Amino acid sequence: MEKLIGNAIVGQSGGPTAAINATLSGVIKGALASDAITKIYGAQNGIEGVLARRLLDLSAMTEEELSLLETTPAAALGSCRKKLPADFEGKNRKIFEDIIEVFKEYDIRYFFYIGGNDSMDTVAKLSRFTKEIGYDMRVMGVPKTIDNDLAGTDHTPGYGSAAKYIATTMQEILRDTAVYTVKAVTIVEIMGRDAGWLTAAAALPSLFCNVKPDLVYLPEVAFDYEKFYEDVEKAFETHPNVVIAVSEGIRTAEGVYVGEGTQSGATDAFGHKYLSGTGKALEIAVKEKFGCKVRSIELNLPQRCASHLSSKTDLDESVAIGSHAVRQATRGESGKMAIFTRVKNDPYEVCVDTADISGIANAVRSVPRAYINERGNNVTDECLSYIAPLIIGEPALVFEGGLPKHFSF
Amino acid sequence: MEKLIGNAIVGQSGGPTAAINATLSGVIKGALASDAITKIYGAQNGIEGVLARRLLDLSAMTEEELSLLETTPAAALGSCRKKLPADFEGKNRKIFEDIIEVFKEYDIRYFFYIGGNDSMDTVAKLSRFTKEIGYDMRVMGVPKTIDNDLAGTDHTPGYGSAAKYIATTMQEILRDTAVYTVKAVTIVEIMGRDAGWLTAAAALPSLFCNVKPDLVYLPEVAFDYEKFYEDVEKAFETHPNVVIAVSEGIRTAEGVYVGEGTQSGATDAFGHKYLSGTGKALEIAVKEKFGCKVRSIELNLPQRCASHLSSKTDLDESVAIGSHAVRQATRGESGKMAIFTRVKNDPYEVCVDTADISGIANAVRSVPRAYINERGNNVTDECLSYIAPLIIGEPALVFEGGLPKHFSF
Repeated sequence: MEKLIGNAIVGQSGGPTAAINATLSGVIKGALASDAITKIYGAQNGIEGVLARRLLDLSAMTEEELSLLETTPAAALGSCRKKLPADFEGKNRKIFEDIIEVFKEYDIRYFFYIGGNDSMDTVAKLSRFTKEIGYDMRVMGVPKTIDNDLAGTDHTPGYGSAAKYIATTMQEILRDTAVYTVKAVTIVEIMGRDAGWLTAAAALPSLFCNVKPDLVYLPEVAFDYEKFYEDVEKAFETHPNVVIAVSEGIRTAEGVYVGEGTQSGATDAFGHKYLSGTGKALEIAVKEKFGCKVRSIELNLPQRCASHLSSKTDLDESVAIGSHAVRQATRGESGKMAIFTRVKNDPYEVCVDTADISGIANAVRSVPRAYINERGNNVTDECLSYIAPLIIGEPALVFEGGLPKHFSF
Repeated sequence: MEKLIGNAIVGQSGGPTAAINATLSGVIKGALASDAITKIYGAQNGIEGVLARRLLDLSAMTEEELSLLETTPAAALGSCRKKLPADFEGKNRKIFEDIIEVFKEYDIRYFFYIGGNDSMDTVAKLSRFTKEIGYDMRVMGVPKTIDNDLAGTDHTPGYGSAAKYIATTMQEILRDTAVYTVKAVTIVEIMGRDAGWLTAAAALPSLFCNVKPDLVYLPEVAFDYEKFYEDVEKAFETHPNVVIAVSEGIRTAEGVYVGEGTQSGATDAFGHKYLSGTGKALEIAVKEKFGCKVRSIELNLPQRCASHLSSKTDLDESVAIGSHAVRQATRGESGKMAIFTRVKNDPYEVCVDTADISGIANAVRSVPRAYINERGNNVTDECLSYIAPLIIGEPALVFEGGLPKHFSF
């Protein structure tokens, strides 16, 4: 294949993670090392920035800047949630033509998009459109999502850091709640609408510590209030402080989200229907049933942006997958997503590869049933063995005035 | 003064912090180094453990164990919320006599109590009672509280680590919320029912980074909804992502807690009055007023137990104040609390001292008005200069399998 020489654009899209900037750094490093890519531009706010020509020339970034970028949370280039039209017909065609106009203007021959499901959808469409019109370029997707629910890859960049944050925070909460002798339930609500990967990570402390959550509920198994009350009752038999991890997305066999169901009658002062979240709903249910002290904790945004506690394994892999995507594009690949394949687990070894994007975009990878115990109230050892290597290692952080130093454009 | 030779008990009380075990380590180190103290016992669950004779002999703890203890969150000995009776009359006298019986049985001549306001109250009462009955012993309080609201000391052990966690998390949330171009408000609810010290720490990123919360509301200033809406409106003029830090304890000029007020009409599915918290109440108010995307985040327990992000300054001082309390007790002091006095701020220098406990117990130290700007929607540079040195430094943590290693008895 003839070498395709030109400029490249990299963009970030979807929800932030603690590792998405490490992948950005990987793409930039890959571009700087390549003799096919002349200039590497960063599109601000993803594809929106391409359309608006908000392009930063990243070609002069130093090693030091890139290193700081790797431990900076959230999307340094800004993000977007824009979804491209489903086809290239009629009015829909215009936006694709607008994008190509920008590509031609800047002589863009490489486009790298770091994101989740929606972003891979963008990559697939752009790849098809450029082929259709015969514009010679390479379009590559690089995955990121804390949810770990992308198909085609062993795991996603960003998941390991989120898992490490959740496991560490759970361990600290377990220490905290153990100090009193009074009967109490603590419910920790963890992100994950459809996949329970993040909530499963809450069980990791059991591998190394003498503490663990009593109960872990994932959205992959239907939630049953009566079984739940039995589970809590049984946990109280062993100790007074019961700690529970729940996915925000748990729902009953009828498909009703726990976070919605319990609140159906509630309205706030403005008459709005009150949606308090899954943890709060269970807090109310437990208080009603057991009459004991109950607290719910929603881990919230820090799950996806707590880069002060990121996993070195995750960051290193995130850089590597970004560079790999560039390398493979310059070798002729297009319409692909970079992926991880786990070579072996003990010792952990992973290799970076690419896969055709058509089978990946818009598919969701759930936690397999074998990773959840029979009763559906905890994860199995097999599940923990899968997650454990992903949280290993602590990156060297730069602190300034006691706070982690971040990079910004 | 004649040297008082005997055994010692140390106990922990009140809410956990990331530094209370560092103080425990300091007390143990002080006791081990003293030739007046023969054995050092740890009372499990504070004064409850004294009464129940749940005493652990800590005299053989190694350097390595103590070092791990210092970076372990929450009270390793367990805690309690027990308050001793107000006087020694009639039935009330019994509990004090029971305590002394245990002290005599174990030849206890030193009692160190690590805790907040209520614990200092226990110290004051025990000190008076032992004097009254002529039992020769020394009773010392060692402060801890993330709230930083104890009188008589420049700051409290535990505050610096909580402040570092809050500032770091705020900085990460600021990065996270900045990635989209859509108009949105993020409200971060921070602990502090009566004092705004913790919430003030959320403004620290402004000292070193190019990000800061737009608005900061402390309980020391009456909260006014109309002024609040004006503040948000004004913040929107400069950027689309408005981030607000609020104390859980903010209340209106009429003394109504924001977290209660807005929910007055709301009930849950069980007909209970819905108390959702301050952040949630403001989320609803902002959504109603501006119709934009709003999210509220309650930092919750991690504020007091996130030892993975503790301040080295705080931990070092926490160890030092524990050892100092022991040293002063063996020199004859009793009925005192160990305190910090700030010698100077630049460079920061602190000395450890003791103060009579009677003026300290049950007093609350609020954020001074000069530390809050005139409009009451942010803190002043003077306030930030006061907090800044307390979050400096990162302790060397031991990790195992990617998780911080904790000590447990």
